[in-house]
Amino acid sequence: MHYTKEDITNMERTSRLLLINSITGIKPANLIGTISEAGISNLAIFSSVVHLGSNPALIGLISRPNGDVPRHTYEHITQQQQFTINHVNSTIITQAHYTSAKFDRDTSEFETCKLTEEYISGFKAPFVKESHLKMGLTLVDVVPIAANNTTLIIGTVEHLLVPENATDEHNKIDLEKTDTVGISGLNTYYELKKTKHLPHARVEELPEF
Amino acid sequence: MHYTKEDITNMERTSRLLLINSITGIKPANLIGTISEAGISNLAIFSSVVHLGSNPALIGLISRPNGDVPRHTYEHITQQQQFTINHVNSTIITQAHYTSAKFDRDTSEFETCKLTEEYISGFKAPFVKESHLKMGLTLVDVVPIAANNTTLIIGTVEHLLVPENATDEHNKIDLEKTDTVGISGLNTYYELKKTKHLPHARVEELPEF
Repeated sequence: MHYTKEDITNMERTSRLLLINSITGIKPANLIGTISEAGISNLAIFSSVVHLGSNPALIGLISRPNGDVPRHTYEHITQQQQFTINHVNSTIITQAHYTSAKFDRDTSEFETCKLTEEYISGFKAPFVKESHLKMGLTLVDVVPIAANNTTLIIGTVEHLLVPENATDEHNKIDLEKTDTVGISGLNTYYELKKTKHLPHARVEELPEF
Repeated sequence: MHYTKEDITNMERTSRLLLINSITGIKPANLIGTISEAGISNLAIFSSVVHLGSNPALIGLISRPNGDVPRHTYEHITQQQQFTINHVNSTIITQAHYTSAKFDRDTSEFETCKLTEEYISGFKAPFVKESHLKMGLTLVDVVPIAANNTTLIIGTVEHLLVPENATDEHNKIDLEKTDTVGISGLNTYYELKKTKHLPHARVEELPEF
């Protein structure tokens, strides 16, 4: 199938949404935890978390336009300057998915979706107890993306919580051990099976292909 | 394990790089195809491709700072205003990985890594023949990320090539059918196993958790 830009523009809205949301490949499934000024916790699934740099450790996430519906996560992050990122694992896919329903401002998704709040001393934003790998971040910058009125929210890692047995000998996370899942489109979840580990690529050490 | 910001800052450089590159969860593995003004094709693996919006279909990718080493992909995209995104599948993981070696400007990774250039009439940037899902994009914007001197490159989809049998009844890509893989950290590859499909989440239709 060859879709041109015109085909995509003329596509029925839901079809386009499902197709275009799935063309970038597998996306990370993460729960973003925040807290409002009034102290109400909030949890929302995001598939747009992206690594920006390691030193300092900077992570980005894309927030949709603020125009049509209230964006609680965006509001809380900009007000409180803090948020958490929690990996979705295979045992909490359904709960994590339903955080995307449009709950009222006064309703905590932790309660409605049966996930458990967890806190670190000195850090306001809530973590997800059921998640195996999680981090607390402070807001560094909010970069407007003029092309479609979205926003790149950037945070730096203040706290990183990793299970003892989840790193390998090179200090990398084994995503099978954390039972981390991926997402495609808006609502299809994938488990991960580690298949290949390759060395750092050097011109003078090319393998036979 | 609880790492604080200070622990991360004080970590040995390679350990930090491997750890922090793997904390966002699974990342999409994509090959970015470009062509230089001199007509030399270029191919580079990126794990930072991110969906920005569906209408118009906008895709972003993060380019590392231009300071220390030449960034051929960034140069070609800004000069030629075009690039392709090609899913890495399980049969080309090794070739795709070695495009990250620092080849000279005059060397095409298609040649050194044994991947095949493919072109669409009227579109300059090269596609990867061996990839099953690929798209051609024109540059829309280049957004500087001041926090760490990286850049968000934004393109709009002009051509989208999807295998006939890879979409399901809802027009979503089945990433098992395209044999698409994910990446964690800098050099660990994961195959994907579709495990759960959930409906659009509505407050009035919550399941029993």
